[in-house]
Amino acid sequence: MLCVGLDPIPAAFPTPLQPDASSIYDFCCAIVDATAASAAAFKPQFAHFAAEGREDDLARIIKHIRTTHPDKLIILDAKRGDIGSTADFYVREAFERYDADMVTINPYMGPESVRPFLNDPTRGAVVLCRTSNADSDWLQQFPADDPVFLRVADAAVAWNHNNNIMLVAGATYPAELGDIRRRVGDMPLLVPGVGAQGGDLQQVLEAGLNSASQGLLINASRSILYASSGEDFEQAAALAAEVLTHQIRRYRSKLLHNGQ
Amino acid sequence: MLCVGLDPIPAAFPTPLQPDASSIYDFCCAIVDATAASAAAFKPQFAHFAAEGREDDLARIIKHIRTTHPDKLIILDAKRGDIGSTADFYVREAFERYDADMVTINPYMGPESVRPFLNDPTRGAVVLCRTSNADSDWLQQFPADDPVFLRVADAAVAWNHNNNIMLVAGATYPAELGDIRRRVGDMPLLVPGVGAQGGDLQQVLEAGLNSASQGLLINASRSILYASSGEDFEQAAALAAEVLTHQIRRYRSKLLHNGQ
Repeated sequence: MLCVGLDPIPAAFPTPLQPDASSIYDFCCAIVDATAASAAAFKPQFAHFAAEGREDDLARIIKHIRTTHPDKLIILDAKRGDIGSTADFYVREAFERYDADMVTINPYMGPESVRPFLNDPTRGAVVLCRTSNADSDWLQQFPADDPVFLRVADAAVAWNHNNNIMLVAGATYPAELGDIRRRVGDMPLLVPGVGAQGGDLQQVLEAGLNSASQGLLINASRSILYASSGEDFEQAAALAAEVLTHQIRRYRSKLLHNGQ
Repeated sequence: MLCVGLDPIPAAFPTPLQPDASSIYDFCCAIVDATAASAAAFKPQFAHFAAEGREDDLARIIKHIRTTHPDKLIILDAKRGDIGSTADFYVREAFERYDADMVTINPYMGPESVRPFLNDPTRGAVVLCRTSNADSDWLQQFPADDPVFLRVADAAVAWNHNNNIMLVAGATYPAELGDIRRRVGDMPLLVPGVGAQGGDLQQVLEAGLNSASQGLLINASRSILYASSGEDFEQAAALAAEVLTHQIRRYRSKLLHNGQ
């Protein structure tokens, strides 16, 4: 249930690595290898590569994951959202150029901006629904009695003919995460916001597990990537991922035991 | 008032050029030079470069515009939208790496995803408000009595301390374009959807001109870029841009004459 977000920040790289963009590939692959035993998915964040002109590293890191850890889901976090043939170009970017399994999609422009990513049943879209940030209520929770994010959740169910949609539901809004779960059946949810942003893991599991006590992919990025700034950064990342996976497993068992 | 959208589609390139990604730079620069006499702005569309791995060409084309046509506004159409330090990486991508003047922004994640692009008063954000596509009403026109797109328009006014926001208002919805104009005062609007998508230029001007009979940037892409598939593609593009500029000027004069 753990997704490790790959948000490489050169200034935060551990001491064994040069604190600049030339270390992005080495850093990300080291994190991937260190955490693969715990992680079900990896989510490289596009902006961190784009700002540095390191798209080729992004492609190489995904190739490394595919080759070395072929059972892992790869989510390109690029928040694409466009229409017509432009959407088709983004499909090619995500699935051909980068060979990601799924790509995060912003639904503001409507169904036409989501559907092109759903045509291939072996790939898919992770659609923004209720994001974890503090002011996401401004648009997503509007209007209060029939909010946009539930409109997105309902639509995702309707679009999901190929069973290849996930929704983003932030850990910082467990009540809304529960609302989404009630709308979407067993659809998997990608949950950012545990850790640094303050989301409570137990509440997330209580609200978000599906009928099979599954259906959650809990994302952690910085708490794992920058668990240590020293020589031991790989061991520290591995341990942070293991601890989080253990916590998830423990809470889940507790909920199962309580018959929830 | 004309913005030429740079959406390079190799398969549609005119006969003098190789119909592949290696011609993207030459094609775009030829279009820029051919239409610069009519265009106030150029808007390269990111997906078209990203799908082909041609980010370096995108940077070089923007540099060409800056150097050869320094008075033109450069809008990077990348529809970014993310939060926290990720938004800061996108700011660096748009304004440092690519040296664009403005970047298109998707507001779904809230104010936090827009504000980082407004800090530098010499740069700015073009925020999606009411897009030109057929199913944009699904989210943007919801709920009918107090729609999301007007919430975005009102917020843009509040965010605009540095006077560096534009809004996207599709030509295909002239009534809503007029609603936006009434909410945002003299704020400039970027208007896609004239031409191929069927937006009516006269209705756009009637609904969208501001108190100074300005404030519209009318985007045209394919009707100019692919005006001819032959040897004369540069002349055809220049002529298409000139005709559109002439039409804009004529309708605007007519409206001024009628006292609107």
